Amino acid sequence: MMKDGPYFEDLPVGTVCETGTYTMSREAIIEYARVYDPQPFHLTDEGAAKSFFGRLVASGWHSASVTMKLMVESEFFGTTGLIGLGVDELRWPKPVLPGDVVHVRAEVVENTPTKSGGRARLRWATTLLNERDEVVFSFVSLTLFPGRPH
Amino acid sequence: MMKDGPYFEDLPVGTVCETGTYTMSREAIIEYARVYDPQPFHLTDEGAAKSFFGRLVASGWHSASVTMKLMVESEFFGTTGLIGLGVDELRWPKPVLPGDVVHVRAEVVENTPTKSGGRARLRWATTLLNERDEVVFSFVSLTLFPGRPH
Repeated sequence: MMKDGPYFEDLPVGTVCETGTYTMSREAIIEYARVYDPQPFHLTDEGAAKSFFGRLVASGWHSASVTMKLMVESEFFGTTGLIGLGVDELRWPKPVLPGDVVHVRAEVVENTPTKSGGRARLRWATTLLNERDEVVFSFVSLTLFPGRPH
Repeated sequence: MMKDGPYFEDLPVGTVCETGTYTMSREAIIEYARVYDPQPFHLTDEGAAKSFFGRLVASGWHSASVTMKLMVESEFFGTTGLIGLGVDELRWPKPVLPGDVVHVRAEVVENTPTKSGGRARLRWATTLLNERDEVVFSFVSLTLFPGRPH
């Protein structure tokens, strides 16, 4: 059932994984916003100019969606069939602007085998960074990873 | 600048807001997944049949995006220009299936005026419910609301 890993034994605390990059085009920002977050500062320059942000910025949920996209396309979690338990502490410290080139960096900050054995609970400090290495989105991902088959 | 409310004084702990409904069509589930979360159980019945889920289910980030859509389209937070501080404790206790009719229910669980005054920090226990009133997605939203103008 689980052939290729990684298994929790392969992911000690401190392990860092990075994805490839993705360019947040103006078109993609507006298209996402049109469907899922139609607020003026995500839709048009004119609407954004009058807003708190002063210019067009990506929806925070668009950044979250792109983070998932990058992780899936990079086969970030391999093929072991991890179980996602939840996500904590979503923060958006800086806006994502049209043309920003983003990628995901995640570090294992906890790896606790379950009492019943055979699996471990992993926490990942996950960040979406722009091309200036600024964190534009961060969260903690809670996952359950299988152990290496005997 | 802030004309219409609601202001933090209008949102005591226990206040409940609900949005209209949205039908999670098979087409929208697949289209979101194709762009942002291309895992087999979000894309095709065949891929899903072999997965943990056994059938096509919506991406968790699609549910998050639809939650935002419903809140924006319902003018959930009014026009006071609240500030989003972050989101905590995202959980997906049940899968979202094609055809599910979902809506958002949010309850104020904390309303703490800032020391400097004029604003308050509000926490909202937010849930996305299906037509059987089952919670399919939940999170806690942290927001800063302005006070009523003097």
